[in-house]
Amino acid sequence: MTKQELTAEILKKKSMLCVGLDSALDLIPKHLLKFSDPIFEFNKQIIDATHQLAIAYKPNIAFYEAMGISGWQSLEKTINYLNQNYPECFTIADAKRGDIGNTSAMYAKTFFEWLNFDSVTVAPYMGSDSVIPFLQYKNKWVILLGLTSNKGSSDFQFEKIGNEMLYEKVVNTSQQWANANQLMFVTGATHPEQLAGLRKLAPDYFFLVPGIGAQGGSVEAVCENAFNSEGGLLINSARQIIYASPNEDFAEAAYNIAQQTVAPMQKFLTRLV
Amino acid sequence: MTKQELTAEILKKKSMLCVGLDSALDLIPKHLLKFSDPIFEFNKQIIDATHQLAIAYKPNIAFYEAMGISGWQSLEKTINYLNQNYPECFTIADAKRGDIGNTSAMYAKTFFEWLNFDSVTVAPYMGSDSVIPFLQYKNKWVILLGLTSNKGSSDFQFEKIGNEMLYEKVVNTSQQWANANQLMFVTGATHPEQLAGLRKLAPDYFFLVPGIGAQGGSVEAVCENAFNSEGGLLINSARQIIYASPNEDFAEAAYNIAQQTVAPMQKFLTRLV
Repeated sequence: MTKQELTAEILKKKSMLCVGLDSALDLIPKHLLKFSDPIFEFNKQIIDATHQLAIAYKPNIAFYEAMGISGWQSLEKTINYLNQNYPECFTIADAKRGDIGNTSAMYAKTFFEWLNFDSVTVAPYMGSDSVIPFLQYKNKWVILLGLTSNKGSSDFQFEKIGNEMLYEKVVNTSQQWANANQLMFVTGATHPEQLAGLRKLAPDYFFLVPGIGAQGGSVEAVCENAFNSEGGLLINSARQIIYASPNEDFAEAAYNIAQQTVAPMQKFLTRLV
Repeated sequence: MTKQELTAEILKKKSMLCVGLDSALDLIPKHLLKFSDPIFEFNKQIIDATHQLAIAYKPNIAFYEAMGISGWQSLEKTINYLNQNYPECFTIADAKRGDIGNTSAMYAKTFFEWLNFDSVTVAPYMGSDSVIPFLQYKNKWVILLGLTSNKGSSDFQFEKIGNEMLYEKVVNTSQQWANANQLMFVTGATHPEQLAGLRKLAPDYFFLVPGIGAQGGSVEAVCENAFNSEGGLLINSARQIIYASPNEDFAEAAYNIAQQTVAPMQKFLTRLV
């Protein structure tokens, strides 16, 4: 998917919502366990219920991996379902991969060839040659970790290097590797005071923003600090939406919470049209 | 596996060799393609031929992932084969995972419960809560990226933070999270001049050292700079050993290169007994 297509979709749906598919057997409604693939059935119903509100879907790869072979099969079915039925939705493999060049090329093959995601999250620690193999694919995206939403982000990301923090260094340096048509940054909603600075460093780049809902960040604060002239945000919510109800009404409940999450985004997006 | 058991094995075998299983369908000998699972057959023959010389085996997870479901099946068979037949060999899932706490817990489940590896490589960028879930498993290990062997290591790892480089900061800070019985560091053989400094920072910790062979590092230089009173090294070689011959003699050829790789280690290890 191109940046233009993604932006058009944001303006059309008046949403920047990314639904995180952190799907696990012990968390989904119990009545789904009778299906041959309960995780796929859960994802399918969540997607069917929310696709008019969601700009993107983000399976959290760890959750699938932890289930073994069947988890990878559920993931494969989920991405195929998305690509076949809702090709207008942007897809993110939240995998946080990254290794030496020949190995990153293999990870790129996994997520862009086998599974055909639009994008993959990548860790920056190993530098340029760990990221570049992912950039060899046309209309596919790298979403590089900038400033993450978790507590441990303070261990290294806030360390001062010359005049900048490590996370700023990552965001600045990596712009030499790819422009805003191929590269996005992960910037946590739990650091609203840093988002405005990040937006200045990377005015045209999309930010994938985790950390609202269960982790405590707010949609309003994210938009106030990091909204740009095209929107420029994919704001992720996972647990709060997908586990909105433990009962048979889970998909409807997910829709309702998704709608509440999107509402404050609309205020900002109507300004653009 | 405990540190004591690993050290005993090193002294017994007089080796610190880790064989990297970077196994790919287009790189293994052609005659193996007739097997129902050519990757497992390749790994099995490599392991059978080298287990008396190898202290550790390190499947490079990206290579398996890129093959899809069948790759994960080959990986599962390989780790089960190792655990059943050569439980004295240390096993490393070279996965370079790392995410927020609840997600890292899922990755830990993948590699320590489903696949039952002894250790997993972890990326440090997201800090303590991305690493700690892996440390909840008894006799399992985190191998944290310190100074990697690739060219891109110079992009961020060598940045100065106060009086130390980022990679030194990672090695210092993470020692507060786990002692040398649960934590190791990845330190690239391509930086021999930094290895001695790293050994001073972490005298008792094992180092997993990639980058000899195809990447240009030397076993002698690694041992001279980073050998400690227990050995304290796992020196990885992958392509040079496993792809030593493209023909039916590949396992024998792998044994011969493994023996040449181990020879300079023995000089250092005989000093310890």
